[in-house]
Amino acid sequence: MSQHSPEPDDVFAWIDDAERAREQAGLVRTLRPRPAASPLLDLASNDYLGLSRHPETVRGAREAAERWGAGATGSRLVTGTTELHAELERELAAFCGFEAALVLSSGYAANLAAVTALSDRGTLVVSDAGNHASIVDGCRLSRAGIEVIPHSDPEAARKALGAQEGRSMLVSDSVFSVDGDAAPLAAYAAACRERGAALVVDDAHGLGVLGEGGRGALHAAGLAGAPGVVATLTLSKSLGSQGGAVLGPAKVIRHLVNTARTFIFDTGLAPAAAGAALASLRLLRREPERAGRGREPERAGRAREVADRLYGRLTASGLTAARPDAAVVSVRAPSAAAALRWAADCREAGLSVGCFRPPSVPDGISRLRLTARADLTGDEIDRAVETILRTAPAGATDC
Amino acid sequence: MSQHSPEPDDVFAWIDDAERAREQAGLVRTLRPRPAASPLLDLASNDYLGLSRHPETVRGAREAAERWGAGATGSRLVTGTTELHAELERELAAFCGFEAALVLSSGYAANLAAVTALSDRGTLVVSDAGNHASIVDGCRLSRAGIEVIPHSDPEAARKALGAQEGRSMLVSDSVFSVDGDAAPLAAYAAACRERGAALVVDDAHGLGVLGEGGRGALHAAGLAGAPGVVATLTLSKSLGSQGGAVLGPAKVIRHLVNTARTFIFDTGLAPAAAGAALASLRLLRREPERAGRGREPERAGRAREVADRLYGRLTASGLTAARPDAAVVSVRAPSAAAALRWAADCREAGLSVGCFRPPSVPDGISRLRLTARADLTGDEIDRAVETILRTAPAGATDC
Repeated sequence: MSQHSPEPDDVFAWIDDAERAREQAGLVRTLRPRPAASPLLDLASNDYLGLSRHPETVRGAREAAERWGAGATGSRLVTGTTELHAELERELAAFCGFEAALVLSSGYAANLAAVTALSDRGTLVVSDAGNHASIVDGCRLSRAGIEVIPHSDPEAARKALGAQEGRSMLVSDSVFSVDGDAAPLAAYAAACRERGAALVVDDAHGLGVLGEGGRGALHAAGLAGAPGVVATLTLSKSLGSQGGAVLGPAKVIRHLVNTARTFIFDTGLAPAAAGAALASLRLLRREPERAGRGREPERAGRAREVADRLYGRLTASGLTAARPDAAVVSVRAPSAAAALRWAADCREAGLSVGCFRPPSVPDGISRLRLTARADLTGDEIDRAVETILRTAPAGATDC
Repeated sequence: MSQHSPEPDDVFAWIDDAERAREQAGLVRTLRPRPAASPLLDLASNDYLGLSRHPETVRGAREAAERWGAGATGSRLVTGTTELHAELERELAAFCGFEAALVLSSGYAANLAAVTALSDRGTLVVSDAGNHASIVDGCRLSRAGIEVIPHSDPEAARKALGAQEGRSMLVSDSVFSVDGDAAPLAAYAAACRERGAALVVDDAHGLGVLGEGGRGALHAAGLAGAPGVVATLTLSKSLGSQGGAVLGPAKVIRHLVNTARTFIFDTGLAPAAAGAALASLRLLRREPERAGRGREPERAGRAREVADRLYGRLTASGLTAARPDAAVVSVRAPSAAAALRWAADCREAGLSVGCFRPPSVPDGISRLRLTARADLTGDEIDRAVETILRTAPAGATDC
């Protein structure tokens, strides 16, 4: 219950104007709380492997809360590091092929930590134009010089890094969230080696989907554990939990422990989230062994296969989509309003899809964003494709 | 397993120098993973009310994971908002006396969201010099003009705000983490009213400890729900879970939903963390009713009482501490090295205390930081006081 009633001289009056402008532009975002048992077919979440509700992942969360408590109770440097956090860090590093790992409360916090702690005023940070908001904010927070290069342009990276005398770093997503396209990691790494620069790669959309058994884009590119390479990850997508991590040489991780503000001044990740991520990780490590004996599908490969099928069938029907390099299939819409209507019509028909509009899309092109979950059945894929095609707006085949 | 062995031309060679400098200054921080059943008496965590292991809070985490899954699966704007998040937001706002609330993945993210989304290039943000790192980073990330004023100085706030023609905002912790002192909230609010400025207060260390039944510092000051006032909170301290929140007028919350990058581009808080925080909140709301019938102590009052006892006994024995306004008791140490040794000696004797050293302390004075948990028994308080006094370094009574 509010202790006060509104006063006439409202210091937040400017928000009324901002709201009106959003309404006029058709860009109002509202929250749509979902029930526990949603009737919608989910092609909108980032639960690529369908693990967020997997019994083993849920059991990992439950048992960790019961054993360690509901919260970490403090900064990782004070009381917030449990043996569970240390175990998760060891197994995450080993799985992805890095020397060491550090777990933070989100992927956002991990990117802020990596970019700020590994740069200083004398550093040049070269950033791909398609990078996630958290990398952009990491660049803004850092004291470094920042140069944004055109999307997926290794030659521009080489040129930008070449202009720098002191320390330099190239930072890029491995798979870009909007279009689902992969970064030219091998060429980016070559540019860094040539210029003596560090390479920081956010593998949020690669972990669990790319590389052998889902070990990620850096492992797939033979760059996991390379001396100048640092990865950031999220535990909230393929691993079906919450949290983020930075992976790299042990001394990089020690440096983050000592200097990264979003690590030092944040409460440690909740035990339930650490436990769930660890359970998912163990599932990923174990399943391919079973798959070899013909028992279970390999989830990473299955997610990519579903993406290819969605892409193939939607583009065969005339829709425009980027060829998926991982598990994101992005379909172009003729306008922001059409994209919004399209997504609403899909939802009306029982299908949940993502809808990316400005300002979330740097190029101004609105899209339906579909995620190819590894656990979608053939029937579900049929239903999704049929619904998307049936509800496609006029102009969807020419954009 | 690493795919690579180290190369001679190490791009992270500069970290070796940074590590050596830290070692020489005696400022190396290392992680100390704790077991599930720690033998240490905990006066170091921020689990002020002892709820992180309370059966109801743990059950809240467990049941939420089982019902909603281990992760939120996407941004709150896509699939990451469950009815559980909406319920937590309603009850949190009602409990603290605000119109609306928005839950984020951490208190850090909540502060970045509030400061950046409520300011623009034309805004002046006036920030107390004692503010938490996440507020400082929010200021750095914002495009606003920033003026840092001396710690707890309403006259300086009034002066700084008076120099501004356009929008302005004053941002402050309610209880400062290092010394546990309270901000002059009433005077800060008066300065804001006089100058037409918004007031943003981080109540991380006030929620659950200050105000009627733990409704927080703003409620205690009669400022909850005031039209120009916004609160940020953490769910990871008194509520024993993880996550953060912003509370304020409904239109402020809608504006954050539409513009705050750490909200839009982050995965929603894990259901287990939301469920645990909600269970803790309900416990806080319910217990005073029972206490009225003489059954259970009121946790907020008990935490403050424990802080007073610790402060009284430690200062009576000659140690220097700031009078606690909430549940943090901060005891001065003669040097960083002495503080580190003191904390280690306490730990050796079975007592876990916080140790704040530069650069975490803006004034350069190292401290033992004790948290007065509501569930400490008289015997535990005796043991803590005895241990701290017995291990006090030479010079601890003169600093």
